[in-house]
Amino acid sequence: MKKKTAYAVAVVGATGAVGKEMISILEERRFPVDTLQLFASSRSAGTNVSFNGQSMTVMALEENSFAGVDIALFSAGASVSREYASSAVNAGAVVIDNSSAFRMDPDIPLVVPEVNPGHLSRHHGIIANPNCSTIQMVCVLKPLHDVARIKRVVVTTFQSVSGTGSDAMAELLEQCKHLLAFQEVKPIVYPHQIAFNVIPHIEDFLPDGYSKEEMKLVNETKKIMGDDSIRIAATAARVPVYVGHAESVNVETDLKMTPEVVRSTLSEFPGIQVFDDPQRKVYPMPLHVAGTDNVFVGRIREDPSIENGFHLWVVADNLRKGAALNAVQIAEKLIDIPES
Amino acid sequence: MKKKTAYAVAVVGATGAVGKEMISILEERRFPVDTLQLFASSRSAGTNVSFNGQSMTVMALEENSFAGVDIALFSAGASVSREYASSAVNAGAVVIDNSSAFRMDPDIPLVVPEVNPGHLSRHHGIIANPNCSTIQMVCVLKPLHDVARIKRVVVTTFQSVSGTGSDAMAELLEQCKHLLAFQEVKPIVYPHQIAFNVIPHIEDFLPDGYSKEEMKLVNETKKIMGDDSIRIAATAARVPVYVGHAESVNVETDLKMTPEVVRSTLSEFPGIQVFDDPQRKVYPMPLHVAGTDNVFVGRIREDPSIENGFHLWVVADNLRKGAALNAVQIAEKLIDIPES
Repeated sequence: MKKKTAYAVAVVGATGAVGKEMISILEERRFPVDTLQLFASSRSAGTNVSFNGQSMTVMALEENSFAGVDIALFSAGASVSREYASSAVNAGAVVIDNSSAFRMDPDIPLVVPEVNPGHLSRHHGIIANPNCSTIQMVCVLKPLHDVARIKRVVVTTFQSVSGTGSDAMAELLEQCKHLLAFQEVKPIVYPHQIAFNVIPHIEDFLPDGYSKEEMKLVNETKKIMGDDSIRIAATAARVPVYVGHAESVNVETDLKMTPEVVRSTLSEFPGIQVFDDPQRKVYPMPLHVAGTDNVFVGRIREDPSIENGFHLWVVADNLRKGAALNAVQIAEKLIDIPES
Repeated sequence: MKKKTAYAVAVVGATGAVGKEMISILEERRFPVDTLQLFASSRSAGTNVSFNGQSMTVMALEENSFAGVDIALFSAGASVSREYASSAVNAGAVVIDNSSAFRMDPDIPLVVPEVNPGHLSRHHGIIANPNCSTIQMVCVLKPLHDVARIKRVVVTTFQSVSGTGSDAMAELLEQCKHLLAFQEVKPIVYPHQIAFNVIPHIEDFLPDGYSKEEMKLVNETKKIMGDDSIRIAATAARVPVYVGHAESVNVETDLKMTPEVVRSTLSEFPGIQVFDDPQRKVYPMPLHVAGTDNVFVGRIREDPSIENGFHLWVVADNLRKGAALNAVQIAEKLIDIPES
């Protein structure tokens, strides 16, 4: 990307749960923003959003919205990305897309800056931001893979409702209010009541019984890690938590790694915080991790059921590192890379 | 046990979450009760509980409470069981103990009636009722082990607060009320806020980093299945759900079992209900399973990451099949077995 002192940035999906985080993270991290343009569907256009103390009006997204834009952060769902990303690229912008639209396209890099920054140089205008549950897992798997080669991962997720969006957060709140008042609950966003329940269903199911969310954990991880030989078995479930995904991750490696080596290896990796002293009630939880930037790892312990195995408990803010922060970090890397 | 037309039954811990279920299950299943005596700590003594339309007063537990009792159902914690179980046995009662006090004692059978009814005949006055999270898992593993021999299980639990007791259920409710009113929350029963959170901490931690709850899943399963060669890796977490434990279970077997064979094998086993049509949003969830007697299994799918592997999603009412119902079923088996 052409080096500038400041960039014209657009956020598509500016009124969504992730879009709002994108705007506040651009501000927090003092991203060199020259102009910021905010887009959403015509339904949400006209909303006012604050950026650097200034009130900005969200505009309806159109084909010609991207004139002069350097970086377009998309987070408005796969169909919006499919419809508008090429207009942005044609207008000269680099698109960082948080949807699933392009993630598995072999010509489009899927990037977690701590894990595979090198893939960025291969982009042709679009860079895909991985799925929330994948990002936090690969951050942890990458340094371990480099040391001991990961053979197999069995992961079960505990995913918060903000991963679905603002409407799901509102649904959890409304359901709790109704239930506490002994009133009936009618699920709208989710297929079943989410309050005081666990739903093992995230995104549509495929004919083999896996959900698309589970297959994202499998396929995106292999692509980001650049290693198809890692075997991954995933189960994804939704829990009544607002923000923060937790993952129970069982890892089998080629070489032996003691819990001490796992801990020290993870501690040295950027963006990871080892939070592991269970005797003192120290382990990562969604509640404490919401609003923070790191991927937290705890409950690190040997798994004696296999030769070289261990367990991890991985928690991150799915809206930040799992989505908006990772996208902004991609933009930061991008403006640091000299144009080839 | 000497055959009678009706039995003198005592419930110890009659005012607890499990004790209350024991009383209602004895009534529902028309257990042949001659007399019912209800015991609790002196703090809870004097409470009135209804049984078969009759109001009964809960009495304070004492050394000599068990005169004439045939069957004593204990659910008042391990220390009460350790203190009073021998008095009950000495008075001629058979104790069915829901605490962890005697579960791993090699001389005391640990029984799930569908799985290892044969172990009942070895008892010397005390029969241990397994831990809630173990019961629902072994019900599912047993028929699969019989067909294809289970080599390894990786399980992650989503456990409801009723597993801790009535005070934990009250804590979840209070925390939700406070949070919805924008008031601060002070955890008492749990080490951290449970409302809108996930806590990967159930019971104390051992020096190797496992919680006692996780080791129960490992050790109790091997004892009940009568096979020490099954390797089990467990992670246990508490979720903000009132009743019903969910378990994500990854199974590796010696012989190949297709999902179809897993489904048909499980369907034929007593006490199991296969609830597995994800495309139609059919999978077990705590919300739908609370108040029911079966162990529900869904999300049955092949795990291509190993040669002979599959995933299961197992949910049961932890107060019923996970505790009170299993105890009453043990009593039912017991009165059916002719005295040797």
